[in-house]
Amino acid sequence: MNVNLKKLAEMLGLSQTTVSRALNGFPEVNAETRQRVLRAVRETGYRPNRAAQRLATGRAGSIGLVMPIAQGIDSDIHFGEFLAGLGEESVRHDFHFVINPSAPEDEELTFKRLAASGNVDALFLAYVRENDPRIAMLKSLSIPFVVHGRTINQPTDYPFLDIDNTGAFYEATRLLIQLGHRRIALINGQSHLTFAIRRKKGMVRALDENGLVFDETLSHNSPMTDEYGYRAMERFLGNPEPPTAVLCSSTVMALGAVRAITRAGLTIGRDISLITHDDVLPMLKPENFMVPLTTTRSSLRAAGSRIASRLISRIGVTSDTVEQELWRTELIVRASTGPAPARR
Amino acid sequence: MNVNLKKLAEMLGLSQTTVSRALNGFPEVNAETRQRVLRAVRETGYRPNRAAQRLATGRAGSIGLVMPIAQGIDSDIHFGEFLAGLGEESVRHDFHFVINPSAPEDEELTFKRLAASGNVDALFLAYVRENDPRIAMLKSLSIPFVVHGRTINQPTDYPFLDIDNTGAFYEATRLLIQLGHRRIALINGQSHLTFAIRRKKGMVRALDENGLVFDETLSHNSPMTDEYGYRAMERFLGNPEPPTAVLCSSTVMALGAVRAITRAGLTIGRDISLITHDDVLPMLKPENFMVPLTTTRSSLRAAGSRIASRLISRIGVTSDTVEQELWRTELIVRASTGPAPARR
Repeated sequence: MNVNLKKLAEMLGLSQTTVSRALNGFPEVNAETRQRVLRAVRETGYRPNRAAQRLATGRAGSIGLVMPIAQGIDSDIHFGEFLAGLGEESVRHDFHFVINPSAPEDEELTFKRLAASGNVDALFLAYVRENDPRIAMLKSLSIPFVVHGRTINQPTDYPFLDIDNTGAFYEATRLLIQLGHRRIALINGQSHLTFAIRRKKGMVRALDENGLVFDETLSHNSPMTDEYGYRAMERFLGNPEPPTAVLCSSTVMALGAVRAITRAGLTIGRDISLITHDDVLPMLKPENFMVPLTTTRSSLRAAGSRIASRLISRIGVTSDTVEQELWRTELIVRASTGPAPARR
Repeated sequence: MNVNLKKLAEMLGLSQTTVSRALNGFPEVNAETRQRVLRAVRETGYRPNRAAQRLATGRAGSIGLVMPIAQGIDSDIHFGEFLAGLGEESVRHDFHFVINPSAPEDEELTFKRLAASGNVDALFLAYVRENDPRIAMLKSLSIPFVVHGRTINQPTDYPFLDIDNTGAFYEATRLLIQLGHRRIALINGQSHLTFAIRRKKGMVRALDENGLVFDETLSHNSPMTDEYGYRAMERFLGNPEPPTAVLCSSTVMALGAVRAITRAGLTIGRDISLITHDDVLPMLKPENFMVPLTTTRSSLRAAGSRIASRLISRIGVTSDTVEQELWRTELIVRASTGPAPARR
């Protein structure tokens, strides 16, 4: 059955305006009527006309994102996974995305134009930096936003969802120290991003509590690709005092690190231990590596889904509460971590 | 300097309408004036107001995509790479994307609504199926579109960009046969997608020309993840007559296949040869595998960039030409292919 608003209203014996208001959550419509309308929508498969809905509600039904892009900037699989989560939740609310590609240096301007365009109801920001001017800019705009991540040297008085990156790598490092490791390397994301800064901080804290010092010659920062993981690990293994353990910030980097270790004739979990952060990327599962990898785990897709839900629920709502969520990661021990080998 | 349309027009001694028309490519403005305007835009860093521009031109400045999503549908790294190419070109023309997530069964309806919304100027379709009803639907809408891929049992009278999948796997199979291989396995994408159908067809053609038969027990179809690649290869190796060579449809699947081969104690390029299609994903390069992989190569990012360019150039243009492009892939030989081992 192909039902439009007019037919639906006739079937229910209500005016089109009442049906429309019930669907769009206006408070004037009582709960009983709303339930009747929603039941009829389910039974008939009615879908509101987007343009009409937009006129009636003043809402665009969309979430805006800025995608930094330029020649030399690689696509990011972590972003795709997050987008799947955002999409999974948005489709339930009949929301779409507006993605503005932008040269990195034009990013703030692009956000402003996106907000001013009327094409989006809410904005989303990711890849947060230490002192991030984009957050003050988002606060100055008049539409809801959620930040995925947190700043460091700024008050965190804005809505965010972050994972406990410090705690994740603190616990991972502590496990390695308990296993007798003293020389621990770090293969991390880009050094200006707060998730990478916090992971290092967690590692440094655990080392410090045990009288150990973070060794800058065993530290690597870069975009998170297989190739950088390989090169970093190769360099560490050439160190006069090579590490007996390594932390990686992504399974994609771990892939390269594992290859460098294997190529050097070493066995993971025996000669060298490895723990990676796991965003639960479906195309690369840590439990499927030749030696299954110990991980700090948090689903990027779940984060995307949650952020979409929060953004959509805030549209048109005036509230003084600033929702903030900090998700703990899970430390999952598999075969890639073992006792430190006897000193060479 | 922060310049708006009014100031820009004053600087040039032209009316705002003329400047606006010059910027939007209206034919009434002569070439000399257009050049002057464009020079001033470059010098002042002027950026047009999107909403004003939209009112003036009736264009939304955007490309529409439908993103099939549901619980259980994984994110796809190939899509992210394509999007980067689309973005790289779109940012040059100040275009954005509107992405509508959609339950797979609602996809056609979602396309129609997207076209009717006025939010997009052009549409893009990918993951083409054998008989794909979505193409007739796109033709019935009144906005330009480009299909990434091609149907099989339908006239191809629509704009597309595809790679020569048949030719790619025909050449790859022929190389393996020349090296003495007779038992060749195939780890492919989902069987309803035309790229997968054509790759199999190319392989079958090369086998056929050499009096060999495609063995269904050495064939696998699934979404292109590491895990499926591993499981398929493991199954092939347990075959009473295991293959001496394998073709993979993605480096992500090859990753799993390589692991299964290594775990079975076999050496790639000696005991078993492997060729993979390479979309040039930056996070997983075939030349960086432990044994560098022979590939059929075509950049997905370049395809995205080219499709954006074609879509944008067709907006507002009436033309009878149907642009169709078929890109040849490159066969790049590395260490993963060698002579077939002596019969066991």
